[in-house]
Amino acid sequence: MINVGVLGATGAVGQRFVQLLADHPWFSLTTLTASGRSAGRRYADVVDWRLDAPFPDAFGDLVVAPTDPASLRDCDLVFSALPAEIAGEVETACAAAGLAVCTNASSHRMDADVPLVVPEVNPDHLGLIDLQRDGGRDGFIVTNPNCSTIVFTLALKPIAPLGFSDVRVATMQAISGAGFAGVPAMAIYDNVVPFIGGEEEKMETETLKIMGTFDGATVKPAPFQVSASCNRVPVIDGHTMAIWADVTAPVEAVLAAYRSWNPPISGLPTQPEPAVQLFDQPNRPQPRLDRMRGRGMTVSVGRVRPGLRFIALGHNTIRGAAGASILNAELIAQKKFL
Amino acid sequence: MINVGVLGATGAVGQRFVQLLADHPWFSLTTLTASGRSAGRRYADVVDWRLDAPFPDAFGDLVVAPTDPASLRDCDLVFSALPAEIAGEVETACAAAGLAVCTNASSHRMDADVPLVVPEVNPDHLGLIDLQRDGGRDGFIVTNPNCSTIVFTLALKPIAPLGFSDVRVATMQAISGAGFAGVPAMAIYDNVVPFIGGEEEKMETETLKIMGTFDGATVKPAPFQVSASCNRVPVIDGHTMAIWADVTAPVEAVLAAYRSWNPPISGLPTQPEPAVQLFDQPNRPQPRLDRMRGRGMTVSVGRVRPGLRFIALGHNTIRGAAGASILNAELIAQKKFL
Amino acid sequence: MINVGVLGATGAVGQRFVQLLADHPWFSLTTLTASGRSAGRRYADVVDWRLDAPFPDAFGDLVVAPTDPASLRDCDLVFSALPAEIAGEVETACAAAGLAVCTNASSHRMDADVPLVVPEVNPDHLGLIDLQRDGGRDGFIVTNPNCSTIVFTLALKPIAPLGFSDVRVATMQAISGAGFAGVPAMAIYDNVVPFIGGEEEKMETETLKIMGTFDGATVKPAPFQVSASCNRVPVIDGHTMAIWADVTAPVEAVLAAYRSWNPPISGLPTQPEPAVQLFDQPNRPQPRLDRMRGRGMTVSVGRVRPGLRFIALGHNTIRGAAGASILNAELIAQKKFL
Amino acid sequence: MINVGVLGATGAVGQRFVQLLADHPWFSLTTLTASGRSAGRRYADVVDWRLDAPFPDAFGDLVVAPTDPASLRDCDLVFSALPAEIAGEVETACAAAGLAVCTNASSHRMDADVPLVVPEVNPDHLGLIDLQRDGGRDGFIVTNPNCSTIVFTLALKPIAPLGFSDVRVATMQAISGAGFAGVPAMAIYDNVVPFIGGEEEKMETETLKIMGTFDGATVKPAPFQVSASCNRVPVIDGHTMAIWADVTAPVEAVLAAYRSWNPPISGLPTQPEPAVQLFDQPNRPQPRLDRMRGRGMTVSVGRVRPGLRFIALGHNTIRGAAGASILNAELIAQKKFL
Repeated sequence: MINVGVLGATGAVGQRFVQLLADHPWFSLTTLTASGRSAGRRYADVVDWRLDAPFPDAFGDLVVAPTDPASLRDCDLVFSALPAEIAGEVETACAAAGLAVCTNASSHRMDADVPLVVPEVNPDHLGLIDLQRDGGRDGFIVTNPNCSTIVFTLALKPIAPLGFSDVRVATMQAISGAGFAGVPAMAIYDNVVPFIGGEEEKMETETLKIMGTFDGATVKPAPFQVSASCNRVPVIDGHTMAIWADVTAPVEAVLAAYRSWNPPISGLPTQPEPAVQLFDQPNRPQPRLDRMRGRGMTVSVGRVRPGLRFIALGHNTIRGAAGASILNAELIAQKKFL
Repeated sequence: MINVGVLGATGAVGQRFVQLLADHPWFSLTTLTASGRSAGRRYADVVDWRLDAPFPDAFGDLVVAPTDPASLRDCDLVFSALPAEIAGEVETACAAAGLAVCTNASSHRMDADVPLVVPEVNPDHLGLIDLQRDGGRDGFIVTNPNCSTIVFTLALKPIAPLGFSDVRVATMQAISGAGFAGVPAMAIYDNVVPFIGGEEEKMETETLKIMGTFDGATVKPAPFQVSASCNRVPVIDGHTMAIWADVTAPVEAVLAAYRSWNPPISGLPTQPEPAVQLFDQPNRPQPRLDRMRGRGMTVSVGRVRPGLRFIALGHNTIRGAAGASILNAELIAQKKFL
Repeated sequence: MINVGVLGATGAVGQRFVQLLADHPWFSLTTLTASGRSAGRRYADVVDWRLDAPFPDAFGDLVVAPTDPASLRDCDLVFSALPAEIAGEVETACAAAGLAVCTNASSHRMDADVPLVVPEVNPDHLGLIDLQRDGGRDGFIVTNPNCSTIVFTLALKPIAPLGFSDVRVATMQAISGAGFAGVPAMAIYDNVVPFIGGEEEKMETETLKIMGTFDGATVKPAPFQVSASCNRVPVIDGHTMAIWADVTAPVEAVLAAYRSWNPPISGLPTQPEPAVQLFDQPNRPQPRLDRMRGRGMTVSVGRVRPGLRFIALGHNTIRGAAGASILNAELIAQKKFL
Repeated sequence: MINVGVLGATGAVGQRFVQLLADHPWFSLTTLTASGRSAGRRYADVVDWRLDAPFPDAFGDLVVAPTDPASLRDCDLVFSALPAEIAGEVETACAAAGLAVCTNASSHRMDADVPLVVPEVNPDHLGLIDLQRDGGRDGFIVTNPNCSTIVFTLALKPIAPLGFSDVRVATMQAISGAGFAGVPAMAIYDNVVPFIGGEEEKMETETLKIMGTFDGATVKPAPFQVSASCNRVPVIDGHTMAIWADVTAPVEAVLAAYRSWNPPISGLPTQPEPAVQLFDQPNRPQPRLDRMRGRGMTVSVGRVRPGLRFIALGHNTIRGAAGASILNAELIAQKKFL
């Protein structure tokens, strides 16, 4: 078993990490950190548990540590659920202290020597870890993309061999993506908000890094362009997106590409089966019905129409956040980077 | 005053007609029709009033007539809120009986000699009325487009002079668009349904007719193409849409086009001011906040970004249905077609 | 293993039965029935699966039988998810044909010789089965109460020893209680509907039968009165209720009664632990957070205040419908009534 | 015209005051105050307008003043939309400076010499103003109750002559009652929260003061008791409540009491007609359909059943907040207290 910790374990993403790590076959969760006023107290006493899933009692008695590399001496790997404002510095310090850091925060995603990885899409980018270690240190940082970008790149990957240069995506994103208190009910009930700060830029840049080519030294961005229009809708969990790609192959070839695609990974505990589910029904996928496929890790696609137009859907706080980091960590462990 | 009737006055769209025609300065509502089992009874006794706006008591005592040209001898013009299954035949019969018919139904929209009109977009298409009258009869049919198409064409019209050949639109449509009982709560709550039967086809074909050129004899479809991806979201009223158009002019020119545009109509009681409202705020328009602008008749646009990408919004049951037919009727009256 | 069937397996409650019976340790689901037009076809082909839980593939190839005792020769016990209009007659015929019938329908609930059972509340009422069998036949009918009544009686049972004669309950009921298409989105979104046909009467009469005394021959209704005010709110699953009871014991005694209560059953696979969960937090229970406790079978209570006032909550389609019938069947099997 | 100001004009209640005071026939809105960082800037520049109703352009250019009696020299009367934490002190200072203060804040509601008034219920309590002025000063404070209490007391007033000593009320309250950002969407979507801090206590104490007897010197609390159970539901505006009162008169007498009741005020511009609307339909009132009756000032009651049980409904931010204060101010002006 590999000892792991969670940085920022009391927040919404942190809670999801704790829930998903309970009973993990490879990882033993030994350390939970939080900000100063929670440190030193029992986890059960400081967390305001907000998930539908029941509180994992096994961790209730863990004493919360301050968010600091010194708290993590026990750990081989840490998951970061820190807010972007503090994530960058803390994660760098943890890596410097020799820890493997798998983070959901955006701070280091576009750093040239930091892998931005979706295991089913670009597992080879983990090779960047060796560059981070060139200075002789053991620790390193691996990032997962923004929630929308994860769903989006998984939906694009199986059809990438068909070729496209121009992709448009209109998202309909869930309120949980903004954190527990991020969206007031008065702002979104009976409403659509056609703006999510920074989201379009993230989808447009992160996608090209993930789907880019790693030549052993650097990642060359993918040679297509993405234009995103991001919207918040009154859905609790699950980002839905309407996608256009200038694929000229007929719809049948697109369907065949989805059906025959196999992800380049295997044997990871959190890996869903299938990674990408293709729907034939005309009105699927739908977030309430399909977000929990593959225990929240499967991305669903459907309504493949000429144009090329289709719909993609994924669970934003599992596949798009904590689950993504954990899958990255599993790949790191499997590939012997620890 | 012009005597008018409403065909199918007890349904959701019919109720909206009745509400909007109360106190109309030009039209006097004298006749309400409904299916056989309601005919002969007081309107107040047969209608299950579902609008937020209070029931217009003035019409409560009107005795509902059967949906039949013979019931409408009193009227110069009738509004049709009939379901598509029966609208086509009844409207043809009414026109044959000498009535002007303004209809929200889809049956005759694509007929070669029937105008499909949004007054601010293609008022000249009313010239098709003369072709319908060629046979010597007085009556005629004028249609308004599908709710999404109305909002869409109004949003495109001001920038049409900038030129585009390829337009994509992802809609986020309100549940009221499916009628009162059209969408079960279990189907849409905490959900998105990425399919609305027939909607994409309507947006793709009706748009080209409306924005096409009328040469005095026929309407030549507009020379661009539309690709639509239509979604239902948990919003009561107001269709929001994310639009891409291959306009190469800079954003400033697009904003200027919206700001300087004036619709080619004036003096109509139901005409909103402005017809198209441009928002500068980064997170507008939003359906709950903006759908009732111009008493529900203004279309709002915003988030104009390079790409060209922008957001459009309009009230689907007012601007997109009953209000649209009434505005058509006002234009017909003003242009002396009655 | 006991062979079981589900009557009306394609509807919302029927689907829930099928889902909950997959992998049941005592019951083997061998027969699914539906109305004439579905009979003879594969279950996977005729069911429009609406649950969030994935479709249980094991039953996809079962050929649907007509809803008729002759279809059920294989079965020892059948679950009825039939609509009230036809349930009464069909269930009587099944019992006459020798089948044990566990039904969620209301038709026979108040019949003098039919047990109306919530296993944790009145397991001894199963003794009525012997009366049904007096005529020499093997078959019998056992009913579970209305969804609200199940939650309500479980919440009252632990404090019944403290005594009360006057109970008031205001419910806030989920939309799933009306079936998949029972509540149009336009009727309930941003709304409360303060009326549910027949619901108040059911809570007022069924409660007294369940909490009444069985003397070996008849059930004498409980000697208190219930006054219910039932409301529909925009919640997908989970009925919440505000309850007043004229208990004069102090709050501490009430809390102690809840904490020390043990249900009079044990060893049933579907039985939750605990049957009734007491919350200390001031703002619990809440339907979205707590409805799935005990896999949807636990009833939660909280906010116990002087007055005596408290809140109760339970999952209406699991604890309040299909799960209730299955728990009854388990008790029947355990008590050797089969 | 009477010059008035609004204290705390940028918040949710403050915005509602500004909206309702535009075009008021008696009051001229001359002064808007806000906290330090907004003072000195144009109202249009500092307010984040959140109401569905359009921004009243007439006030856009008003320069916001600091919340301080010195800013209000122009005014005869001020409306307070201040948060409870600062309202008490500021309002006392304003009254000391000679201003009439009509406040929606809770700080002074239970002060012995401060009237807590719902004009249709206890207009005579304004007599307490004279006691406040005994010290020789001109200024005074008049409060309106909590939003739920206003709806509740209006619903009880017409049947008070029938007599009751024990009243229970379960509320289903709208999210707008907590202010714009008061309820995160994640907390209330697909959910009920059975707790609103302080709300039950307010309903239980304020009701007795309002419905108490003023003998010229003090208000003697009404001699009945109230037991409230307050719940938040996913509704934007409109508090619905299920009420029980131990009225022994038959339902017909209760209906007659509602039908024949006339409020003890007349001639006030904001006064709705009727003040209390009785519904006969079995499923009314409903918040989305009925909250805007009487421009949001009418309280609706329905489902009067033996028990005595009934449903009441009112708009919480109009009738229950800003509109209530304005109606109080109109009564004050009419009764020559200014």
